[in-house]
Amino acid sequence: MIKKQLPAHWLVIDWGTTNFRAFAMGEQGDVLDKVELSLGLLQVKEGAFAIELENVLSGWLAEYKHLPIYMAGMVGSQQGWANVEYVPTSVGIEQLAHNAYRFELPWGATATIVPGVSHQSAEGLFDVMRGEEVQLFGLAKLTGMADLVAIMPGTHSKHAAFNKGQLVEFSSYMTGELFSVISTHTILGRGLPETGALTDNLAFLKGVREGQGEQLTNTLFMARTHRLFNNITDAEVLDYLSGVLIGNELKALEAKQVQVYLVGGGKLCERYQLACQELGLESTYINGDECFIAGMAAIQKVMNNDN
Amino acid sequence: MIKKQLPAHWLVIDWGTTNFRAFAMGEQGDVLDKVELSLGLLQVKEGAFAIELENVLSGWLAEYKHLPIYMAGMVGSQQGWANVEYVPTSVGIEQLAHNAYRFELPWGATATIVPGVSHQSAEGLFDVMRGEEVQLFGLAKLTGMADLVAIMPGTHSKHAAFNKGQLVEFSSYMTGELFSVISTHTILGRGLPETGALTDNLAFLKGVREGQGEQLTNTLFMARTHRLFNNITDAEVLDYLSGVLIGNELKALEAKQVQVYLVGGGKLCERYQLACQELGLESTYINGDECFIAGMAAIQKVMNNDN
Repeated sequence: MIKKQLPAHWLVIDWGTTNFRAFAMGEQGDVLDKVELSLGLLQVKEGAFAIELENVLSGWLAEYKHLPIYMAGMVGSQQGWANVEYVPTSVGIEQLAHNAYRFELPWGATATIVPGVSHQSAEGLFDVMRGEEVQLFGLAKLTGMADLVAIMPGTHSKHAAFNKGQLVEFSSYMTGELFSVISTHTILGRGLPETGALTDNLAFLKGVREGQGEQLTNTLFMARTHRLFNNITDAEVLDYLSGVLIGNELKALEAKQVQVYLVGGGKLCERYQLACQELGLESTYINGDECFIAGMAAIQKVMNNDN
Repeated sequence: MIKKQLPAHWLVIDWGTTNFRAFAMGEQGDVLDKVELSLGLLQVKEGAFAIELENVLSGWLAEYKHLPIYMAGMVGSQQGWANVEYVPTSVGIEQLAHNAYRFELPWGATATIVPGVSHQSAEGLFDVMRGEEVQLFGLAKLTGMADLVAIMPGTHSKHAAFNKGQLVEFSSYMTGELFSVISTHTILGRGLPETGALTDNLAFLKGVREGQGEQLTNTLFMARTHRLFNNITDAEVLDYLSGVLIGNELKALEAKQVQVYLVGGGKLCERYQLACQELGLESTYINGDECFIAGMAAIQKVMNNDN
């Protein structure tokens, strides 16, 4: 393998439970190169974060030992490299920057881990995020909006609200993880054709509409009865299920009828966009990586101005 | 093994997806003996229902070849012995009896499979049950009530309403199956102590209350954040999760503030009773086997009067 000779000035890393993504950044905040690996926290042996990171970097870049590294995600959790305490809402970008954890890497460079954010609801219940807060401040930067509502689809989908440039509240929905375990491990997914591709918009939209019902655990059972009564085919079951779960998640926003940003990967956001359309919610897609990088650049800027 | 010499007149069998339960009935409708096996439909090789049944009976009873057999449950489904069509609501006991499927067993006795019931909601969505309809008519018999609301906790929990002696509507909730897959396969159940016993009433009741929230997939995530913020211990997570799912299911009845019957196994019904109490719902427990037997006796009586 030929190591890349890049005029990189710093590195940005999104290090989550199952994925690792690193971006080599140029002087102007431009992305020079990108590496994506299935090297999530679960794959890293206890205490071996520095070793794993150096393995990746030394195989990728000819020169990396002088590059400051900015990280976010579950890497800053109890199960991660260092347990960086959550910053409670409301959170401005300054608080994220000031509460970041900075330490020296074995090869001499400086590492920074951006803290996650916690939110306590009116009912006193806590919610948490790690990594999405960087994307959200990037989204605010890219759109120039001080007030916004964003949906970040995923394993634990997030709905977040900004007010006057502050992250003021957010909630998590287990949409992605539930889709995965329900389709893999319950009777609803049994005996489906191998393809399992999410391609059928009609079945998906039927799910979105029916996912508006009062009781999710009842609506999920319809994936079974629709099959029994030939209202959907075996090939459509996963689309229907995905629609039910996404539609149910969007109920939380439907009443507000706000304009929402969809932040994340293109394929999943496309499904959310279809669902939003079906429910009369106006949505705008913005790439999650772009938000992450813009957010990290903004945080880095605050930190550097502080020094 | 000594085969039992019983003055049995007929046999009642509840044959489901994962379990098989047979009761030897005396002349007066009294249960002489009972057999319970993990011999669900999933364990029976295709087309081998008669062979499996004769295996069980010949090992259990000295004389069985003359005994009529009454069955209900998934044995009457597409994946079962014979696909007995659902009877649509409203359903009286006569319709169940008249639509039962009767056939001769290889050893000369008569077998009867009671049909399941389907219900179409006001929104046009179908729901189905197989086996619970027998318990419900037994419940009506045992209580002497022509109008009642019953909860039948389980893998796919059912809420059913009787009106003037007719089963008029019901809904399924995937409470049991979701509890199982969420605690086994999602992040919420990861790293819990081995015991996993459901013993903590306070954590359970906290779950019941918080399960009343608007968005189940958000509330489920609280099983994670409560752990993070030390609001519940690792040993309490499963109790909390169970509470959230049962509490969420009971939302469907809470508004109606009716008196409900809880029909099923004692241990699970006890948890539902605690939850009902917490939500101000008056509940009465009746053993599920007793309801099943009483229901089968009532159906058999109608069938015999017809002949």
